[in-house]
Amino acid sequence: MKIAQVAPLWERVPPPTYGGIELVVSHLADELVRRGHDVTLFASGDSQTLAKLEAVCPRALRLDPNFREYSVYETLELSQVYQRAAEFDIIHSHVGVTALALANFVPTPTVHTLHGSFNNENKNVYSHHHKQSFISISNAQRQVDLNYVDTVYNGIDPGSYQFFAKPQEPAYLAFLGRFSPEKGPHHAIAIAKKTGWRLKMAGKVDVVDAEFFEREIAPHIDGKQIEFLGEIDNVQKAELLGNAAIALFPITWREPFGLVMIEAMAAGTPVIAMSMGAVPEVIAHGETGFVCQSYEEMAEMIPRALELNRRQCRQHVENNFSVAQMVNGYEQVYQKMIQQRISQNGHLHAAKITF
Amino acid sequence: MKIAQVAPLWERVPPPTYGGIELVVSHLADELVRRGHDVTLFASGDSQTLAKLEAVCPRALRLDPNFREYSVYETLELSQVYQRAAEFDIIHSHVGVTALALANFVPTPTVHTLHGSFNNENKNVYSHHHKQSFISISNAQRQVDLNYVDTVYNGIDPGSYQFFAKPQEPAYLAFLGRFSPEKGPHHAIAIAKKTGWRLKMAGKVDVVDAEFFEREIAPHIDGKQIEFLGEIDNVQKAELLGNAAIALFPITWREPFGLVMIEAMAAGTPVIAMSMGAVPEVIAHGETGFVCQSYEEMAEMIPRALELNRRQCRQHVENNFSVAQMVNGYEQVYQKMIQQRISQNGHLHAAKITF
Repeated sequence: MKIAQVAPLWERVPPPTYGGIELVVSHLADELVRRGHDVTLFASGDSQTLAKLEAVCPRALRLDPNFREYSVYETLELSQVYQRAAEFDIIHSHVGVTALALANFVPTPTVHTLHGSFNNENKNVYSHHHKQSFISISNAQRQVDLNYVDTVYNGIDPGSYQFFAKPQEPAYLAFLGRFSPEKGPHHAIAIAKKTGWRLKMAGKVDVVDAEFFEREIAPHIDGKQIEFLGEIDNVQKAELLGNAAIALFPITWREPFGLVMIEAMAAGTPVIAMSMGAVPEVIAHGETGFVCQSYEEMAEMIPRALELNRRQCRQHVENNFSVAQMVNGYEQVYQKMIQQRISQNGHLHAAKITF
Repeated sequence: MKIAQVAPLWERVPPPTYGGIELVVSHLADELVRRGHDVTLFASGDSQTLAKLEAVCPRALRLDPNFREYSVYETLELSQVYQRAAEFDIIHSHVGVTALALANFVPTPTVHTLHGSFNNENKNVYSHHHKQSFISISNAQRQVDLNYVDTVYNGIDPGSYQFFAKPQEPAYLAFLGRFSPEKGPHHAIAIAKKTGWRLKMAGKVDVVDAEFFEREIAPHIDGKQIEFLGEIDNVQKAELLGNAAIALFPITWREPFGLVMIEAMAAGTPVIAMSMGAVPEVIAHGETGFVCQSYEEMAEMIPRALELNRRQCRQHVENNFSVAQMVNGYEQVYQKMIQQRISQNGHLHAAKITF
């Protein structure tokens, strides 16, 4: 198939540290190429990919000192994609709402992966375009009634994650994620303090979360029981998670997927999480972690989580959340959509389709 | 003609105080309706118009406490406009770059009025779409090589501007505009101090300009020679300008038009301005003000500007910058574009065109 992948421009593909969407797009594009597809990736010019790279801007906008207005770059990207639509059998958008306005104007079908969550603003424009084709990254994410073609879970490459057969001594709990109220780092601290466990925390503090961090997090950091490591790179992330006895995922919002859970499990570390959003779909309750109804229950589950089989945690990721599975899912979606388009309308020039 | 007007959503149409684009769109839409056209205005739901209002959002986004992400609303607006494209003979976009990606996908022609200025970011996407149809609001604005259909100057309704035959005593200079470096309020102060003139200044201070204001403006405000009136309403603006002996327009950038110049002249007040951007096209040099090559020259021109005929200043606006003239210009553009489209391609269904 001739496939266009449309990535956000804020981070390069793959991202050097954070950037969940760009990481998924990177795995997807590369694996599709390995499977013989003709893939064009629209992304920032510093991206590294096996696909044909169409550089919309020279470098990730996050790193561009002249960057001011995202819509300018996004308009340029979508203009390039949709002007060339006839070259593709399918367009796969990872950029959110803005591609919706264009998708209906070309015969080539577009599928949108919903990487984020719905809110009172974006749900109107999604609803307006509810007949377009969407992929949810968890079933829990489907809070707005749209034409969902399938759920395709995010996948990682287990081979690039070291397996940690035993947690480091002295044992600790790990929290990895943005320090925002939605991710619940304050609950992680409360759980550690209640149980007397050591807690190592890492992740970035966005400007909008600075006040939350100063008020709810900073006073508890003592460098002994509660450690704060700041922003860390991929190697450090893998070690933080893999060396931990347990990873905590004490979210306060409907997390649409939660990549850090599978990263922890891939390293062998069980996850104790709040039962919100995708959590029940990602954790095998009682096997690779615990899906809890309260933060108190999360604390209570620590002794049982220590007894879980770390090899089984990793196996769960290999079986359900690998890049191979993810790409299987997307390939099926593409084929289904192309077949539908052929059978439904006369716009498509069959000659352009080459499987 | 069946005309779609696509307005920004940040302010309502017309704006209660500031909002140059929304004011132009308001005049244009209403006058087109008065001339018998079938006009649909896509704008915020609190807009007041003679046209058919298509409310994209309930109220101006500036006033919506839940507002977070402009692109969501703009995508919804452009989706609505372009899905209904076949209902219109022409689509007139005032929203900048984002409409560019869509315009080529429908047979109905789109014309984009360039209300802002070019920068290193947006010039790429404009250049990418250089074959689309653009209207400049001054000849000086044409810094990027695009398909300019015409220049149509912004127009005001002189009837709604009181004429001030004599300046108020004691006489003063007026500065009205955002307190940003580009608008040159610091030069207005320097001119007043150098010449001993009183200066009354009004306008908003954006968050990004707070430091500039505190450093360059605030120390000079003494409430006697240099007065700062803050943000003022339309009635106060008209009085500030009309009662002034002279209005200063000491810009430091390529102003694409400069509405405040015609507002001052409509009230009878000559304008002394820096020769940048549209200034030489807007001021009749030596008749309604002076177009200067330096801020020193601006100061030197004050005595001569006091001798100019205030009635002639107003007449200049009536003759060149009225709503009637502006709408004449746009009507001609619409007719030209529709004729071109009919003669150039077979997409257009002639039956849909009704003059």
